[in-house]
Amino acid sequence: MLDATRNRTRNRVGTSQAARTQPSRLADLATRLADVRAATERLCEPLAVEDCVVQSMPDASPAKWHLAHTTWFFETFLLAPHAPGFRPYHPAWSTLFNSYYVAAGPRHPRPERGLLTRPTVREIHGYRAAVDEQVQTLLREPASAGRPGLADVAELGLHHEQQHQELILTDLLHAFSKNPLEPVYRDAPVPASSPQRMAWRGFEGGLCRVGHEGGGFAFDNEGPAHLFHLRPFEMATRLVTAGEYAEFVEDGAYRRPELWLSDGWAAVQAGGWEAPLYWEERDGAWTRFTLHGRLPLDPAAPVAHVSYYEAEAYARWARARLPTELEWEVHVRGAPVRGQFVEDGSLVPLSRGEAESPFGGAWVWTASPYVAYPGFRPVAGALGEYNGKFMANQMVLRGGSCLSPRSHLRASYRNFFPPGARWQATGIRLAR
Amino acid sequence: MLDATRNRTRNRVGTSQAARTQPSRLADLATRLADVRAATERLCEPLAVEDCVVQSMPDASPAKWHLAHTTWFFETFLLAPHAPGFRPYHPAWSTLFNSYYVAAGPRHPRPERGLLTRPTVREIHGYRAAVDEQVQTLLREPASAGRPGLADVAELGLHHEQQHQELILTDLLHAFSKNPLEPVYRDAPVPASSPQRMAWRGFEGGLCRVGHEGGGFAFDNEGPAHLFHLRPFEMATRLVTAGEYAEFVEDGAYRRPELWLSDGWAAVQAGGWEAPLYWEERDGAWTRFTLHGRLPLDPAAPVAHVSYYEAEAYARWARARLPTELEWEVHVRGAPVRGQFVEDGSLVPLSRGEAESPFGGAWVWTASPYVAYPGFRPVAGALGEYNGKFMANQMVLRGGSCLSPRSHLRASYRNFFPPGARWQATGIRLAR
Amino acid sequence: MLDATRNRTRNRVGTSQAARTQPSRLADLATRLADVRAATERLCEPLAVEDCVVQSMPDASPAKWHLAHTTWFFETFLLAPHAPGFRPYHPAWSTLFNSYYVAAGPRHPRPERGLLTRPTVREIHGYRAAVDEQVQTLLREPASAGRPGLADVAELGLHHEQQHQELILTDLLHAFSKNPLEPVYRDAPVPASSPQRMAWRGFEGGLCRVGHEGGGFAFDNEGPAHLFHLRPFEMATRLVTAGEYAEFVEDGAYRRPELWLSDGWAAVQAGGWEAPLYWEERDGAWTRFTLHGRLPLDPAAPVAHVSYYEAEAYARWARARLPTELEWEVHVRGAPVRGQFVEDGSLVPLSRGEAESPFGGAWVWTASPYVAYPGFRPVAGALGEYNGKFMANQMVLRGGSCLSPRSHLRASYRNFFPPGARWQATGIRLAR
Amino acid sequence: MLDATRNRTRNRVGTSQAARTQPSRLADLATRLADVRAATERLCEPLAVEDCVVQSMPDASPAKWHLAHTTWFFETFLLAPHAPGFRPYHPAWSTLFNSYYVAAGPRHPRPERGLLTRPTVREIHGYRAAVDEQVQTLLREPASAGRPGLADVAELGLHHEQQHQELILTDLLHAFSKNPLEPVYRDAPVPASSPQRMAWRGFEGGLCRVGHEGGGFAFDNEGPAHLFHLRPFEMATRLVTAGEYAEFVEDGAYRRPELWLSDGWAAVQAGGWEAPLYWEERDGAWTRFTLHGRLPLDPAAPVAHVSYYEAEAYARWARARLPTELEWEVHVRGAPVRGQFVEDGSLVPLSRGEAESPFGGAWVWTASPYVAYPGFRPVAGALGEYNGKFMANQMVLRGGSCLSPRSHLRASYRNFFPPGARWQATGIRLAR
Repeated sequence: MLDATRNRTRNRVGTSQAARTQPSRLADLATRLADVRAATERLCEPLAVEDCVVQSMPDASPAKWHLAHTTWFFETFLLAPHAPGFRPYHPAWSTLFNSYYVAAGPRHPRPERGLLTRPTVREIHGYRAAVDEQVQTLLREPASAGRPGLADVAELGLHHEQQHQELILTDLLHAFSKNPLEPVYRDAPVPASSPQRMAWRGFEGGLCRVGHEGGGFAFDNEGPAHLFHLRPFEMATRLVTAGEYAEFVEDGAYRRPELWLSDGWAAVQAGGWEAPLYWEERDGAWTRFTLHGRLPLDPAAPVAHVSYYEAEAYARWARARLPTELEWEVHVRGAPVRGQFVEDGSLVPLSRGEAESPFGGAWVWTASPYVAYPGFRPVAGALGEYNGKFMANQMVLRGGSCLSPRSHLRASYRNFFPPGARWQATGIRLAR
Repeated sequence: MLDATRNRTRNRVGTSQAARTQPSRLADLATRLADVRAATERLCEPLAVEDCVVQSMPDASPAKWHLAHTTWFFETFLLAPHAPGFRPYHPAWSTLFNSYYVAAGPRHPRPERGLLTRPTVREIHGYRAAVDEQVQTLLREPASAGRPGLADVAELGLHHEQQHQELILTDLLHAFSKNPLEPVYRDAPVPASSPQRMAWRGFEGGLCRVGHEGGGFAFDNEGPAHLFHLRPFEMATRLVTAGEYAEFVEDGAYRRPELWLSDGWAAVQAGGWEAPLYWEERDGAWTRFTLHGRLPLDPAAPVAHVSYYEAEAYARWARARLPTELEWEVHVRGAPVRGQFVEDGSLVPLSRGEAESPFGGAWVWTASPYVAYPGFRPVAGALGEYNGKFMANQMVLRGGSCLSPRSHLRASYRNFFPPGARWQATGIRLAR
Repeated sequence: MLDATRNRTRNRVGTSQAARTQPSRLADLATRLADVRAATERLCEPLAVEDCVVQSMPDASPAKWHLAHTTWFFETFLLAPHAPGFRPYHPAWSTLFNSYYVAAGPRHPRPERGLLTRPTVREIHGYRAAVDEQVQTLLREPASAGRPGLADVAELGLHHEQQHQELILTDLLHAFSKNPLEPVYRDAPVPASSPQRMAWRGFEGGLCRVGHEGGGFAFDNEGPAHLFHLRPFEMATRLVTAGEYAEFVEDGAYRRPELWLSDGWAAVQAGGWEAPLYWEERDGAWTRFTLHGRLPLDPAAPVAHVSYYEAEAYARWARARLPTELEWEVHVRGAPVRGQFVEDGSLVPLSRGEAESPFGGAWVWTASPYVAYPGFRPVAGALGEYNGKFMANQMVLRGGSCLSPRSHLRASYRNFFPPGARWQATGIRLAR
Repeated sequence: MLDATRNRTRNRVGTSQAARTQPSRLADLATRLADVRAATERLCEPLAVEDCVVQSMPDASPAKWHLAHTTWFFETFLLAPHAPGFRPYHPAWSTLFNSYYVAAGPRHPRPERGLLTRPTVREIHGYRAAVDEQVQTLLREPASAGRPGLADVAELGLHHEQQHQELILTDLLHAFSKNPLEPVYRDAPVPASSPQRMAWRGFEGGLCRVGHEGGGFAFDNEGPAHLFHLRPFEMATRLVTAGEYAEFVEDGAYRRPELWLSDGWAAVQAGGWEAPLYWEERDGAWTRFTLHGRLPLDPAAPVAHVSYYEAEAYARWARARLPTELEWEVHVRGAPVRGQFVEDGSLVPLSRGEAESPFGGAWVWTASPYVAYPGFRPVAGALGEYNGKFMANQMVLRGGSCLSPRSHLRASYRNFFPPGARWQATGIRLAR
């Protein structure tokens, strides 16, 4: 967002309209926001009230919390500074639903999000409706065009909401996985993936320009665009499949320390890992737990729910390596964005051919730790904490998964998680 | 229970009816069971669905789990062996709702009870209704009189249900206490307690007979009755009050290691204890969090939510000591049972004078570790695990609390918790 | 000690000499003290400097620390109050070598005892020599007879030193066991034990008098003597042997939760226990690690290095139970004290027949939690912390082990350790 | 090393001597090795035996272990493959002193290094002497010139030994810091540093070549040399001083979460950090614990013993940032290597002006996570584990400290530690 702001502002320097937003942009935002907010609620429709309360591990959050936190975001960063006569919906909720913004005030401890039985789910929906109404009013009001920053915060909130759409599903999957009854989020026919031939595509390297620039939204961490010198490399034409990963498992990889980074081997042992998260052997065959319940392994589908450590060890075993995030970005520029999964709040099975897209099968662990691009500078204020403060001990993921909303993905997008995280839909693309 | 069984059987040896139960006993049990089961559900009426799901610490359980587990108890120990044509309500639930009975099959891990979003609360109520109907049918069927053990298991199940009624409330209080919104379980006027003069009542000691004997229900750990030689002792005529305990706190007790057992001091430091659980200083005055919300401290009410370590340190500070469980039992024999709090599923405030009862204000930590009485022998089978396997690292509590059902308490009843537990309504009565 | 003091004082009430000690008692104490102190040092003779520094777990202490702490005890409780012109040997050492006496000032954290490379072993020996010399001078000085408490503290220090002699060996054994080189403390022929027939000896019970009384030293926790009503019981004529325990192991006991207390089973799983501490299967046969190195299991020797949980589970498996501490004491009154192992600083193998003694094979876990006897009152001051503050979460052990100094044991002696402790020479005697 | 090998080999391709080493190189190595090995032992001269045994935290190792492990390295990688008739000095020691080389066999658990009382320090010195003699013999034997890889492993072992020289001192400092007696490693006058003006030096950036190339030794992770595009930047002319850092502390930095990375703030709170490691306020003034004992803070000396998190927060507070490792390398090329501290096993105080050197004051935390350079490939076999397997969750440090041997440092050297590590002599140089 911040970068987008800067770029746009920079373009307008010297005009008298520098601080004004096009009313049509605000109207467009209002429409898109209404859609995105409604999509979040459709995602929660199949859930029982009980499903919305539970936090199955400190990294995950209850669906109820996601519903409230994304609303808190609009209330705190959009309504509070911009809505005339603003009054908080409930004074104590700003503490409960602040995720990590130090400058926005105190926070409720993250691992205790699952202890909050109140406010109830119904009360949270009331909160959403009230805030949505005020946001729509604000964006459609003529005077808002004169409010600097308003449109950018609205745009940021929209993308923030989309990030949480994916988390609602991954957190729910984790919670369901802890229940021996193996609940089903939504029944759906899951067609088997078509096997695709694996190939390598070569790139010349040299001095490349990477990072976000030009129009369109981007998070601050996607810029500034800058030059980077790449050696020639080759990139696999598709993700590593579950069937290929099963060979790695069956080759004893989880018992062979020489295949692993030192920290990776420690994670294997501490976690008792023997296969990707959600895989289980039943009656001699691999199965995986999904939002559609437990299914047999689809050998042609991309492997998912592996940690960085597993991705890295797999690449070593396969005599290849993981791509850097800039190799991935160079490789993808120009490739069409297709194949996503969550379109309008419904899970849409991938159709044939889509796994070849660089987007949408599974997030790709890159070999790049998550650090600032040269010249990166977060904006002032609480929103400056959005990305920058996490720049330690995390690895960059690129692409997107079958659970990512379609309009949320782009070539410069930098997702990041700690190298041991497995509950996201994270997979592998090889380079060499 | 087991002891009661033994006693009753022993009386009947030599008659041809040894194995038969009086039909009137079964009818009476059916009526009492219906009442007790309904009372459990009334306790849950003020709860939102969300309140029923949460487990706020490994020692506590969600209300939903309590509702299901007590039902599982009847299904497993009453219906399965006795109901003709018995079929389990749901095959997987016997694992989910088994608390600790090794001999009754595998169990779901206790700290993960709060992760089970399914079955839903509504489904659990369906389970309760179905099992209740079968239990009532079974108990009222003429042929049941010929089933040995049936009445005793029903009686045990009834008392088991009452134990969980108290746990539903203490676990809920703990969960609510973790919510900054400080939810209220039920609004109620809480009249201030009347101050009562503290006095000592002397006992002569000598060779006393203690433990359960004669008619009426008792758990196996309350017997066998046996002789014990007691030195003369004095017992306080009432529990230690919150006001008295506040003096201890204000005397710096939580910063003075010389007042504490070695393990007690370690608990103070590890837990950061500065006062009883749920006490908080607000605007310079003590408050306590209760099921009626946060209230000012009532100095004349019994102190509650202290650990054994705190009770023991308080006694040292007050130049007295905690009574042994047998001193307590000798002291109470003959005293009327009154002053309980939960009567029929409603919270009933204590009336004047009731704090003097040995029952009902707060559980009394005794100086006695929980061990078997001489000659104790648990029954064969899974129900033998009811009490005996916990005979390590726990202290005996006597009396009962404002949250204990009235008909559940008696002079020989032995409650037990680890010395560091504070979430029960546990208090102090001094001896010397 | 305190009890001894009280008794002796009581006898002398009414005489003008109440505060005076017999000079012959002081001279005798001086002689015995010199012997005991020298024995401690002989125990350390086979040790390399390196062996004296290491703390292999928080419960254990380095030999160097034991050497210093026992010296600190004399300096703090004997010299400081009684020696004219007393000056501490080194001002900072009183903090370093205080074990737990709150009233004696601050302490160095127990788990960090193994981090103290200085003072060196040589410096500690200098400390011992200097304090010993002052103690001898003080005890042999005529004026000392007029110092109340002096003799009692000296006697207490002597027994305290003997307690630490045993700990030096058990802590060392633990440290050596963590070294894959399996160091040997002292080579010695270890003759095989003679198998002894197991039998039961009956006792009538009734009202018994237990606890220390009369002359001779005793710790405060051994009194007051008091009446206790015992049911008739039977006691095994010897300890459970390693061969018998091996049957328990081979019967799958460590995989059968129904044999264990709930906390015991948790300990088995958390610790990965599969046999007593120091047992290991090598080439298909059991071996045990000892101060003489790794040896084959001697099936006729008493089993040792089992926790209370293992002892309790074994008893259940063997259809018996553990004795209470008072049953043990009643059983042993009148039996001669023989069969100890550490006599004068050397390890002396047990000779034939000695295993039958109630003392000296292995400490016996009793079914009794460690609590105060009725009427127990610790003395004022720091020495009152010697025993009383540990009266929680520990079980009483009776008898003594092959590592206990001969003169240290008696029928009323109450040793105590947490139920999960295994690094002491702790075994099993059955009752029923 | 591997890179050096590759470069050198590449140069010689096509000659018939490809596999032969110059005898003069071997003789030179033998001489340098003898010096370096002797310097290690001189570092240990001031230590008591007790000082050599202790492991004060899992990350540190006892001096004894360092002495043995560096010897094991020569035995395993030099003697075993190259010395005719090689026999291991002690068969079990290869397990005890293997640090992490999976391919070199099993290892003793790192956190238990401090539990090994045997072999004794004297025995380890015997081991060193025996291996040194064999190494010298081997290197000086004419036939050795024909052994491919021999010289490179010897060179690697030499630099490995130097790395451990620094660790011996930092680990010892940590162990001494846990002793309330605050032992002194070596008394020495520590002259106050001269204050130096802080300035910025500008660099143009552009396409730079970085990484090791050409002659001379380098570890494998320093290459391959490659192109990198740098933006213009400025580098501070000296390290941040203790006096400057004290201002940061006194500005409340350790209580202001907005200054920290999210993981950094968590580390501050979990560790109770309030200042750099070893700083303590005494009588209202800052002191620091050093190998010369506790000293007053020298405000002009470089701050040391800060974690990456502290360095990063300091830079934010100072409105600057940390340099990337490649900025640092570009900045330093051409600067003379001077100012080191450990020259020949003695601590040499820094003389005036030396703090300006990029080497030798304190290691500089860079903003670069430790990852492979493009095209990096570890060699086959156990030595391939030297660096590559640690490429996760660590940050690169550049430069060197007052404890680093002079000949060990160079512009391409990449040191690495986890971002929370503080026991190394790690400091801060600002960039912008």
